[in-house]
Amino acid sequence: MQTRFTLTTQGAGLYEITAQVARWLAGTTVQEGVLTLFVRHTSCSLLIQENADPDVQTDLQAFFSRLVPPSDHPAMTYLRHTYEGSDDMPAHIKAALLPVSLQIPVTDGRLALGTWQGLYLFEHRDAPHRREVVAHLA
Amino acid sequence: MQTRFTLTTQGAGLYEITAQVARWLAGTTVQEGVLTLFVRHTSCSLLIQENADPDVQTDLQAFFSRLVPPSDHPAMTYLRHTYEGSDDMPAHIKAALLPVSLQIPVTDGRLALGTWQGLYLFEHRDAPHRREVVAHLA
Amino acid sequence: MQTRFTLTTQGAGLYEITAQVARWLAGTTVQEGVLTLFVRHTSCSLLIQENADPDVQTDLQAFFSRLVPPSDHPAMTYLRHTYEGSDDMPAHIKAALLPVSLQIPVTDGRLALGTWQGLYLFEHRDAPHRREVVAHLA
Repeated sequence: MQTRFTLTTQGAGLYEITAQVARWLAGTTVQEGVLTLFVRHTSCSLLIQENADPDVQTDLQAFFSRLVPPSDHPAMTYLRHTYEGSDDMPAHIKAALLPVSLQIPVTDGRLALGTWQGLYLFEHRDAPHRREVVAHLA
Repeated sequence: MQTRFTLTTQGAGLYEITAQVARWLAGTTVQEGVLTLFVRHTSCSLLIQENADPDVQTDLQAFFSRLVPPSDHPAMTYLRHTYEGSDDMPAHIKAALLPVSLQIPVTDGRLALGTWQGLYLFEHRDAPHRREVVAHLA
Repeated sequence: MQTRFTLTTQGAGLYEITAQVARWLAGTTVQEGVLTLFVRHTSCSLLIQENADPDVQTDLQAFFSRLVPPSDHPAMTYLRHTYEGSDDMPAHIKAALLPVSLQIPVTDGRLALGTWQGLYLFEHRDAPHRREVVAHLA
């Protein structure tokens, strides 16, 4: 069974999608399986992370911004792919470092997430974007 | 088919789980499929790595400790989520950088791992923890 | 359904495998499912990345070479697993940071990749290698 989620992002950061995904799952009859989520882009990521303290999301974004600074940063002058702006190539690098897909077991008709695990789209671009996520349940 | 493995960790480092997982697989009748392993936490990871030279595991841990130092390190003062200790937020960051799930094809009833590939739980917290891994075989 | 692809690499870098994989998929009758690709090695990776501008691949390789320098670099003297050369342990570290497997939904008999997404083997070793990728379609 497949569906597609369309998400709109307003700048870099983590956008929680757990409720939206769980709602779709609840409308199916699958009791045991695996849900695959796949993002059809190379400048954003999917991520499972702590959903309790919002500081975790702030810190994650801060860490990755320091690990992969904008291409106009003195440390990044070796980057060539810069024509879409200084957040262009860093977004591709972050999309290599972080997952393009997630696989979550389904048990008793529910996502087998741990207590503190939430599903996120991690946007790496500064400008607003429309993002498409394919969900496959089997 | 699903099961859950419960693991106990005694500080940060890699804990091999290949034999335990292979034993469970051997008790099933599946000849061809994919095994999904999923860890229900945001401060440890699953990893496939070299299982021959233990120095590889030591070096991996050393690299990630340097890439993501404790939050009381001068380079990490920007981190906010620190109330569970200086290994708290770094554990979340490592859990973002490393896999929360693994997918291993099963061929002729066995994991299709390469000669040097082993399955590991990578614990990022210093204190002992009880960790739960969901296995789904299909 | 399973198959294995054997690839030959001539030094570190990204090798596109999208066409080869899509060709195999086209020879099957599966209309909807998930394709799992799994690389049976711990010193190369699989990666989904932009397939339009070759500079993206150059920049990706440059970033990871700087993030994980050779073990004879002054910053990497703590590494112990060095007997296969200065690109040995860095290859294992890159193989931890980047995917060992990919999961791509199949829709209407085709890979549900985004417009700019290509499938790559990312070789981390300098010497030529023979690499094996297991494909599972279900």
